[in-house]
Amino acid sequence: MLGAPFSLCYNDFGDTMTISSLTNDKIKNLQKLGQKKYRTETGLFLVEGRHLVEQAIASGLCREVYTTDETYSGFPRVEVVTEPVMKKISDTDTPPGIVAVCSRPKPGPVGKHVLLLDGVSDPGNLGTLLRSALAFGFQTVVLDDCVDFTNPKVLRSTQGAVFGLNLIETSILDFIPQHPNHVFFGTDLHGGSGLEGLDVVPAQCGLILGNEIRGVRPEVLAITNRNLVIQIGEIESLNVAVAGGILMYWLKKDH
Amino acid sequence: MLGAPFSLCYNDFGDTMTISSLTNDKIKNLQKLGQKKYRTETGLFLVEGRHLVEQAIASGLCREVYTTDETYSGFPRVEVVTEPVMKKISDTDTPPGIVAVCSRPKPGPVGKHVLLLDGVSDPGNLGTLLRSALAFGFQTVVLDDCVDFTNPKVLRSTQGAVFGLNLIETSILDFIPQHPNHVFFGTDLHGGSGLEGLDVVPAQCGLILGNEIRGVRPEVLAITNRNLVIQIGEIESLNVAVAGGILMYWLKKDH
Repeated sequence: MLGAPFSLCYNDFGDTMTISSLTNDKIKNLQKLGQKKYRTETGLFLVEGRHLVEQAIASGLCREVYTTDETYSGFPRVEVVTEPVMKKISDTDTPPGIVAVCSRPKPGPVGKHVLLLDGVSDPGNLGTLLRSALAFGFQTVVLDDCVDFTNPKVLRSTQGAVFGLNLIETSILDFIPQHPNHVFFGTDLHGGSGLEGLDVVPAQCGLILGNEIRGVRPEVLAITNRNLVIQIGEIESLNVAVAGGILMYWLKKDH
Repeated sequence: MLGAPFSLCYNDFGDTMTISSLTNDKIKNLQKLGQKKYRTETGLFLVEGRHLVEQAIASGLCREVYTTDETYSGFPRVEVVTEPVMKKISDTDTPPGIVAVCSRPKPGPVGKHVLLLDGVSDPGNLGTLLRSALAFGFQTVVLDDCVDFTNPKVLRSTQGAVFGLNLIETSILDFIPQHPNHVFFGTDLHGGSGLEGLDVVPAQCGLILGNEIRGVRPEVLAITNRNLVIQIGEIESLNVAVAGGILMYWLKKDH
């Protein structure tokens, strides 16, 4: 599945060689993973930093590790690279010294609590929402027309949550009628009702959050069981990741 | 108070001239407002985009407007600039066509609900927290060793909330004992108690949130009335702006 560009080349002595060439084919391919098109084509993405790499390894999604640390032994397939090479691979100004090539996670069975994101476009917002989803037990996340979750900025904001979630990229308009045992809550700044009336939260539910500017699409709001709003004053709206955190906390807490 | 570099120069005919020179002294000074040092020295900062400029004008903090739109008439002191000049002034890749020079807001009397931020360092997090503070009526915000709130990234995330808040830059360790009628809630991932026990919320209270890595300093936690934690699973912590949103919502809602 990894394909030729990502096969590992050890030297004839059986141990790894340090990659120092900036034009090495593997390094050029790793760098291409900065582009969404190439990530989609290969089904691969990069995570940076020891914390994320460890979580990638624990999740079983890690394929290869690249590091500047010659003593690193946390994974069977490791390539040692020089600092200039790491700088070329890394998405950040201060490269963390270790990156992992990971396979895109495969969707699994739909859980009891589902977060549905309708066109979330800011990488920081998507990452923060995924982090909160894992924290509050919304283990299934449906992504419809959102920023790519393997985008480096998204991955940094998730703090590794991407490796603990069941991520499903599909149409929300298709997903809702396919799950009649879930109660779906939309969010609607204009027509939603407050959380106060929501005394009994169903055991199986879905929470739908929308795009930063447009919110949830009207055609989605039209097929939910109920639409909610967080009552606020003196400002037009909350940040979508903040609203999502409040609503997920509310839907999971004991009433 | 504006000082010579920001005084306005009209031509002899009484109307404004379009500034096209990238080396114009005013333009160079505006560009310098990208640096925190220069913002602190002058007591001035820039906001970009029509939405923020309108809020700056409404707040009384706007001093001058620079725009590429020759027909703009929303403020008495306007300078028309060319697009390359706007690009030089702007902090963004796609300049919004209008910016305002604003005076730093002056602290006012302390309100009933206070948000206290102990070393929040990420501009997006600070901006989002200020936006939520205004939404939930925490109109006084104490900033202790945080990223500068006039940083362009902070201002973008606030969505203009900075113009509706009473921002006080001071030591939290000094502030708490000076306000004995407020009940102060710290946040402590390790020693805090859950929100469930918090049935009666005091009419005057302060919520303290900490740095993204270190949390609230132990010496601050030691002088609060009570320390809280949001119960979560499968992940180490929530994003500070999400945690802040949940706690502010909780402290303001009817129980």
